[in-house]
Amino acid sequence: MSEAPFPNVAVIGLGLIGGSIGLAVQEYMPGARVTGWDADADVRCVAGERGLAHAVPEELADAVADADLIVLCVPVRAMESAAAALAGKIKPTCVISDVGSCKQSVAEAIARALPGQPVVPAHPVAGTEHSGPEAGFATLFQNRWCILTPGKDSDPQAVERVSAFWANIGATVDTMAPDHHDLVLAVTSHVPHLIAYTIVGTASDLEEVTRGEVIKYSAGGFRDFTRIASSDPTMWRDVFLSNKQAVLEILQRLSEDLSAMQRAIRRDDGDALFDHFTKTRAIRRSIIEEGQDDARPDFGRSDHSSVGDGAANEGGSGL
Amino acid sequence: MSEAPFPNVAVIGLGLIGGSIGLAVQEYMPGARVTGWDADADVRCVAGERGLAHAVPEELADAVADADLIVLCVPVRAMESAAAALAGKIKPTCVISDVGSCKQSVAEAIARALPGQPVVPAHPVAGTEHSGPEAGFATLFQNRWCILTPGKDSDPQAVERVSAFWANIGATVDTMAPDHHDLVLAVTSHVPHLIAYTIVGTASDLEEVTRGEVIKYSAGGFRDFTRIASSDPTMWRDVFLSNKQAVLEILQRLSEDLSAMQRAIRRDDGDALFDHFTKTRAIRRSIIEEGQDDARPDFGRSDHSSVGDGAANEGGSGL
Repeated sequence: MSEAPFPNVAVIGLGLIGGSIGLAVQEYMPGARVTGWDADADVRCVAGERGLAHAVPEELADAVADADLIVLCVPVRAMESAAAALAGKIKPTCVISDVGSCKQSVAEAIARALPGQPVVPAHPVAGTEHSGPEAGFATLFQNRWCILTPGKDSDPQAVERVSAFWANIGATVDTMAPDHHDLVLAVTSHVPHLIAYTIVGTASDLEEVTRGEVIKYSAGGFRDFTRIASSDPTMWRDVFLSNKQAVLEILQRLSEDLSAMQRAIRRDDGDALFDHFTKTRAIRRSIIEEGQDDARPDFGRSDHSSVGDGAANEGGSGL
Repeated sequence: MSEAPFPNVAVIGLGLIGGSIGLAVQEYMPGARVTGWDADADVRCVAGERGLAHAVPEELADAVADADLIVLCVPVRAMESAAAALAGKIKPTCVISDVGSCKQSVAEAIARALPGQPVVPAHPVAGTEHSGPEAGFATLFQNRWCILTPGKDSDPQAVERVSAFWANIGATVDTMAPDHHDLVLAVTSHVPHLIAYTIVGTASDLEEVTRGEVIKYSAGGFRDFTRIASSDPTMWRDVFLSNKQAVLEILQRLSEDLSAMQRAIRRDDGDALFDHFTKTRAIRRSIIEEGQDDARPDFGRSDHSSVGDGAANEGGSGL
């Protein structure tokens, strides 16, 4: 194990992601000390009991005073006030990072709250549909991507250290411009979540089909959507409002494509449907080849220690 | 093990579902003999090698002559010709069933092709995204629903025997009117598949985001859609064309709900988003309680022998 890129790490917000970072630092970065803090006293209490960090002090100042890296793990729209609360309590050299799913708005918010402080925004593309201080686990980031979106004036050395930090806890690091990140994530994450939330709502509002029937027969495909539609509501509300332009842009394209499918069905255009369905099959194959999902019946769990890390969406669907 | 409800079973179409039925009969119905047939000689060859049935003769007539139950396992729009091909080759008492995902159109097609023959349409709500004679396995129907949609003039004894057949190979049987079945499945299966196919297509057509990026970052949620968007294209083309009215009706409602979400995002209406997202979470919980999915890290696989049976969609999503 190489030397820890930051001797003292502080994690603000001890939900699924923050808690997992705390556990991962303790597991994979023996040289580092990690402190944790959460605005919610109950969360601090559970975090202390589960040992999500070496220490979970009552006062924010005590959690961050010695920190060389602070990772903000709060909903996207809470980033600015979380950063502002650090003012006057931290070392001037302390690097501020975060785990927000939208990068442009978050980078601006942190810069506003802590002018002059070194900032390296990050987004680990990992998670589960569970949330809260009970949900984290040390292997969450194994074999997952973490995207850094440094600004033009980011200190290259700080970027390198944050990159090493994520690599140490198992992630593969990539770098991207913030606006491009927001568009890529709108496609691969934000709009899929919105669609899942919508279809689950549509199904539960029908008069002709009871909610019990929807639940009973969900194995036909619906079930796949409900998993991501059970993710944390506060986090997702913030994501959609913060990445508004990109989300609306992708949604608009999706609506047009959906209309084309609707039209093909109405006109009995079987060839158009068949061609489309054949194309999407190839994309699935690429995702499995890329190692971002697994087609085996045991989801490849026998190969590695990572549990609940997202390498797992196979199983029934079909009819 | 009780006595087999049908001593001789013939399965027509040896893909995922037909092959699984053949294997399940051999595994769980020791008193019964099962023959298999497929219009494709290559499929018959693989089926013979894998032992999907006790016998896979070259001629259809040889596969069905002694049958007391014939299960048609072909795409929905191929049901009529598959049934017509049986005329003159089967016993007058032989019960005809099928596994189509649309019941109204299929029941009509079979009745047209084989007037006077006893028919009990069925739909096992089970499957995987894999297809073909290599895809089937004996435990596919364990803990899954099978919906029977008998007509008004169906022989009650035949219905009871078909019900016992499915129960013997692991399914829980339910009965429903064909038109209600088609609406329920439009919601729980057909429209979710159409949405998944659409969104995967939209993502792969973007100019600003490469297909490689979509694949790389798919763990953010997109991945969940690609699984069902890789199901058999012929089967799904037929489903959408055969259950047109119900699919278009549900699609229309979904479009309206999607517009409402779009509007909430555009107007920064965080409360509307939060309320909606909170509601859908409860539905997810019900699906897990109902046993149609599993929230545990190992997907409950340690509890039962069923592999790839659909009890498995947990894992990463989240951010």
